[in-house]
Amino acid sequence: MKRFCSIPLLALALGGAAPVPKQEPAPAPSEIVAAAPATDWVAIAAADLMVMDLAPDTRGKPRRVVIQLMPAPFSQGWVGNIRKLVAARWYDGVSVNRVQDNYVVQWGDVSEKKPLPEGLANLTDTGFAAIRSVTDVHLTNGGSVRDVEPNVSWVRGEYLNYRAIRDRKGGAEGYPHGTGYVEGWPVAGDVDDNGYEQLAIWPTHRHAMVGVGRNMPPDTGTGAELYTVIGHAPRHLDRNIALVGRVIEGIEHLSSLPRGTGPLGFYESAEERVPILSVRMGNEVAGLPAYQYLSTESESFALYADARANRRDAFFIRPAGGADICNIPVPVRRVPAP
Amino acid sequence: MKRFCSIPLLALALGGAAPVPKQEPAPAPSEIVAAAPATDWVAIAAADLMVMDLAPDTRGKPRRVVIQLMPAPFSQGWVGNIRKLVAARWYDGVSVNRVQDNYVVQWGDVSEKKPLPEGLANLTDTGFAAIRSVTDVHLTNGGSVRDVEPNVSWVRGEYLNYRAIRDRKGGAEGYPHGTGYVEGWPVAGDVDDNGYEQLAIWPTHRHAMVGVGRNMPPDTGTGAELYTVIGHAPRHLDRNIALVGRVIEGIEHLSSLPRGTGPLGFYESAEERVPILSVRMGNEVAGLPAYQYLSTESESFALYADARANRRDAFFIRPAGGADICNIPVPVRRVPAP
Repeated sequence: MKRFCSIPLLALALGGAAPVPKQEPAPAPSEIVAAAPATDWVAIAAADLMVMDLAPDTRGKPRRVVIQLMPAPFSQGWVGNIRKLVAARWYDGVSVNRVQDNYVVQWGDVSEKKPLPEGLANLTDTGFAAIRSVTDVHLTNGGSVRDVEPNVSWVRGEYLNYRAIRDRKGGAEGYPHGTGYVEGWPVAGDVDDNGYEQLAIWPTHRHAMVGVGRNMPPDTGTGAELYTVIGHAPRHLDRNIALVGRVIEGIEHLSSLPRGTGPLGFYESAEERVPILSVRMGNEVAGLPAYQYLSTESESFALYADARANRRDAFFIRPAGGADICNIPVPVRRVPAP
Repeated sequence: MKRFCSIPLLALALGGAAPVPKQEPAPAPSEIVAAAPATDWVAIAAADLMVMDLAPDTRGKPRRVVIQLMPAPFSQGWVGNIRKLVAARWYDGVSVNRVQDNYVVQWGDVSEKKPLPEGLANLTDTGFAAIRSVTDVHLTNGGSVRDVEPNVSWVRGEYLNYRAIRDRKGGAEGYPHGTGYVEGWPVAGDVDDNGYEQLAIWPTHRHAMVGVGRNMPPDTGTGAELYTVIGHAPRHLDRNIALVGRVIEGIEHLSSLPRGTGPLGFYESAEERVPILSVRMGNEVAGLPAYQYLSTESESFALYADARANRRDAFFIRPAGGADICNIPVPVRRVPAP
C-alpha cells in the first residue's frame, strides 16, 4: 500500500525514507503534539463527559460515543438541561433518527411523546453568544499578543483566554468574524482590533461538535434532541443553534451510519433507526478511560496550529500559509499509561 | 418529527407556518436554485462523467457513484490518464481500500501489482495550478466587478470567468488566497487586486472533490489511485495533490462505509474492501440521466451564494454575513422532465 493521500497524523510514519522535497521537512503537527510536555495537557473531568452506548452493530460490536460537554460560560442552560435528562435516564431507549450526508447525525425521541423530566430550563436565544461585550479585558504586553507565522495571533485577557487564528487583514474564513479558541473550544467572535475593548464570543460549528436541535424561532430546544456535525463545518448555524459539546471518541459510529432517504436525511422506517441503549455521565461509567485536551494556551498548541497552517513535513510541496479553524482541531487523547 | 436542525435545502418546506423572526424571511438558497431559469443551467457532457459501480451492499442494493471530470485548463494530464485507465478497463476489479473519518475515501489496486496500461503521461507538480500568471485578463467595466452584500464579488475576464467569494479585506477562509468559481468549479487563487493583472488559480479541496493519490514528492500519481473528500475541506492539500473531478451523485455510497481501523484509515482485511465492479465513461452507460450544473456566472448563482452567506429564511436568527467557499456548493441536478 504505497500510494496514498497523506494524512497529517500519520504521514511521517510512512514517509520517513522518502525523497526530501526542496525545503527541509519540519515536524508534522502530530509530532509536535506527541512531543508536548505533560504540563500542556489539561484533564477533562469525567463528570463533564456523556457516554452514549448505541445498540451493537450487525456483527455484535459495541458502539460507544463519548461526548465532552461545554464548560462555562458557554451554553450552560442547555448543558444543565442535558445533565437533568441524563440523570432522569431520559435518553435511554431513544434513537438515532437522522443521518444527512455532509451535515449532521441527530438523535432523540422520534415519537415526540416521551414526557420530559421536570425542572428543565426554558431557554432563549440570548444564550447562543455566551460572552458579550466583555470590557476590561486587559492585555499583558510581551507575549500576550503575538504573531506566529503570518496569521496566527492570540490574546490573553483577564477574564478569558482567547487565541485567535485570523486572516491577516481581519475577518476569517470568509466570515466577518474572527475565530479562535477559548480553553480548548473553537469559537468565533467580534473583536475590536483597536485595543480589544469589546469582545463577543460564541462557540463555532465544526466536525464532531454537538448541538441542540430545535424548531423554528423563538424555540431554542431543550437539549432532548441533539445532533453532531459529520461533514464540512456548517458555520451558518453559529448563533442560530446552541452548541453544547463535542464528540471526543466514537464519532465513526455515527458518521458511518447509512444516510437517511427521507427529507433532511431522516430515516423513513423504524428498522433504520439506531437504538440508544443508555446515556450516562462519565463518572457513572466504570472503567472509562481518562481524557485530556491540549491546552490552547500552550506553546505546543501554538506550534501545532502553525504547523497545521504551514505544512512543511515531507509529503507537502506548498504550505497553504493559513488554515481555517476547523482544520486546526484541538487534540484530545486518552491519558497515556505512566 | 418536529424538532430538527435546519437544512438549507428543505427547511422552508417544513417551516412555512412557523413564527416569523425579527426580519422578514427571504427565499432559501434552495428556492433560489429552484427558481433559476433553464438558461442558467449548463449541461454536463456524458463523456465527462465517470460512472463507478461498486458491488451491491449487504442487502443487494446497487451502489453507483457518478463523477464529473474537470474541464480544461485544470489537471488535464491526470484527466487524460484517467480516461485511458477507464478505456483499458483498468479500474474494473480494484477496490475501495481506505475510509478515514472526516477525511477521504480512497480506491485503487491494493496489491500495487496490477500493470498500468501503456501511454499514461508522466506528470509533474506544475500541473497543480492550472493557470499561472495569466496576463491580459481584461475586465469589462460595469457588471464585471461587482459587490453583492459585503463579501461576494466576481471578476469576468477574457480568458476565464472567475467569481470570487472573498473576505472584505482580502484573503479568504483563514488562507492567504482568494477563492471563487471558474465555470462551475471551486478554485483558490492569488489575485492582484490592483488591476487583476496576474492570476494564478487552482482547484480547491471541498466535500466530494476527487483527487489523485500519490506517494512522496516528486511523485504526483498517475490517476490509478483516487480519493474523494468525505469531511471538512482539507484545504492544506490544495496544490499538493492534483484534483481531477467531483462526485455529483452517490457520494453516500462512499461516505457511509465503515471507517478503516489501520493507519490512515486503510482497511486491514480483504473482507472490508469494497469491490469496484466497473468504471465506464457516461457515454458508455445506457440510460444514464443527463446532468446540469448551475452556471457560476449566472445571476441565479450570485443570488444563491449571497443567500448561503446571509441566511434570512425562517429558521435563522442571525445571518452569518459570509461563507467559506465550501459552504457554497455548486448546485448540480438531473435534467428535469420537460
